[in-house]
Amino acid sequence: MKIESIRNQIFKETLQLQDKKFRDKNNLFIVEGKKQVKEISKYWHIKQIFISEKHKNTIKIKNFTNVIVLSENLFNKLVSTQSPQGIMAVVKKKQYNVKKIVKTRGLFIILENIQDPGNLGTIIRSANSFAAKAVFVSKGSADIYSEKTLRATMGSIFHLPVINDINIEDTLNIMKKEKITIFAASIKGEKYLNDIKFPSKKAFIIGNEANGLKSETEDLADELVKIYMPGRSESLNVAIAASIIMYEATKR
Amino acid sequence: MKIESIRNQIFKETLQLQDKKFRDKNNLFIVEGKKQVKEISKYWHIKQIFISEKHKNTIKIKNFTNVIVLSENLFNKLVSTQSPQGIMAVVKKKQYNVKKIVKTRGLFIILENIQDPGNLGTIIRSANSFAAKAVFVSKGSADIYSEKTLRATMGSIFHLPVINDINIEDTLNIMKKEKITIFAASIKGEKYLNDIKFPSKKAFIIGNEANGLKSETEDLADELVKIYMPGRSESLNVAIAASIIMYEATKR
Repeated sequence: MKIESIRNQIFKETLQLQDKKFRDKNNLFIVEGKKQVKEISKYWHIKQIFISEKHKNTIKIKNFTNVIVLSENLFNKLVSTQSPQGIMAVVKKKQYNVKKIVKTRGLFIILENIQDPGNLGTIIRSANSFAAKAVFVSKGSADIYSEKTLRATMGSIFHLPVINDINIEDTLNIMKKEKITIFAASIKGEKYLNDIKFPSKKAFIIGNEANGLKSETEDLADELVKIYMPGRSESLNVAIAASIIMYEATKR
Repeated sequence: MKIESIRNQIFKETLQLQDKKFRDKNNLFIVEGKKQVKEISKYWHIKQIFISEKHKNTIKIKNFTNVIVLSENLFNKLVSTQSPQGIMAVVKKKQYNVKKIVKTRGLFIILENIQDPGNLGTIIRSANSFAAKAVFVSKGSADIYSEKTLRATMGSIFHLPVINDINIEDTLNIMKKEKITIFAASIKGEKYLNDIKFPSKKAFIIGNEANGLKSETEDLADELVKIYMPGRSESLNVAIAASIIMYEATKR
């Protein structure tokens, strides 16, 4: 099938997915580029794949039939990257069973009000590299399904549960019932990260870029932890801080 | 003094500084926003400060006379951020004495071909937090004086030497004469980062986002080191990898 008209219904519905409101309503999101589309695992449902006219003979797709060719003009309207690689997919969002997920041993990451999609995506990418069991993203954070976030995840969103729009307090209550120890990254921390003995079930809460965690959230943590920094400025990018925490909490 | 005309010579010369060619030629760069301008230390020479018309009564500048008020229109042409805070400065680049710098004990960071200005700036910010002695940036990397890089540094470029346009081999030769041990981050590493006993004089080379280090560069290192990652995808953002290295190499 090939679409060339801007008035085509499938094209119009896909274009709407650039808007969070429609992603939420339809439970769908767009994934761009070869690397990311390749990362979509068999546990995800791909609704559609689009290929640009120019790339239709060079891109090979196995075991998937619903491939639509778009004229260059239409394809470029759907993607926002500067060098579109001629492939994108419409993927169904996944529902996760939080109560089941928190029963596993390991590290959980909870993000409060992360505003920058690049930071959010980079944290998810690191969480996958450090084998975190899941990432929980608070309501009011950047959207995990936005194009910028997804680009920074490098496809890792398909390899570990990322649960969005959570309420921090509710999530912590569920975790506490499972005897997960709750750490919070805070400059008020009494202990340094590298002095912590981590239990097998642990969660780390990380706060907003400019303001850190809300004090109500800090109050809910079992322990406040800070990163040792010998330099003048005690300020790390939030994705850096989160990743150092994951590195330290999961290293042998 | 106030400038309202787009044909004003000072305005035109400042506008040119958005272009690397002119920044190089004039040895000047632009710093935007309150936080960053505040970070300019006394060891730097500020040539000019611009304030937007709208902010002229709310921004206070001490001990500096060459302040120019720009009409909103002109000010907005000079800045690229979405929410300009009404202040920017033109700052003279600094010349560093590399041979003197490498005589100090501590950690040096060498970056090869880092392409993304956000990554470059974030690494410089972390280097400041972890008290690296200097950051060396290879020719062909993103420009340390571009607006995007500077924004990600959060003003830290004013607090540690960042030396750009270096030749990697020459820099390593200078370091080797000073008995600095050269480590390189590489997936080919035989040792994990957390198994290394760091000497007091050490340098870490970190490579390009997509391709890592050139093999010639790896050959020049004393030791190849990798980061332990228990997860499925062994892939970290380059600023994350660099920062974890700095964290581990400088922690107590």
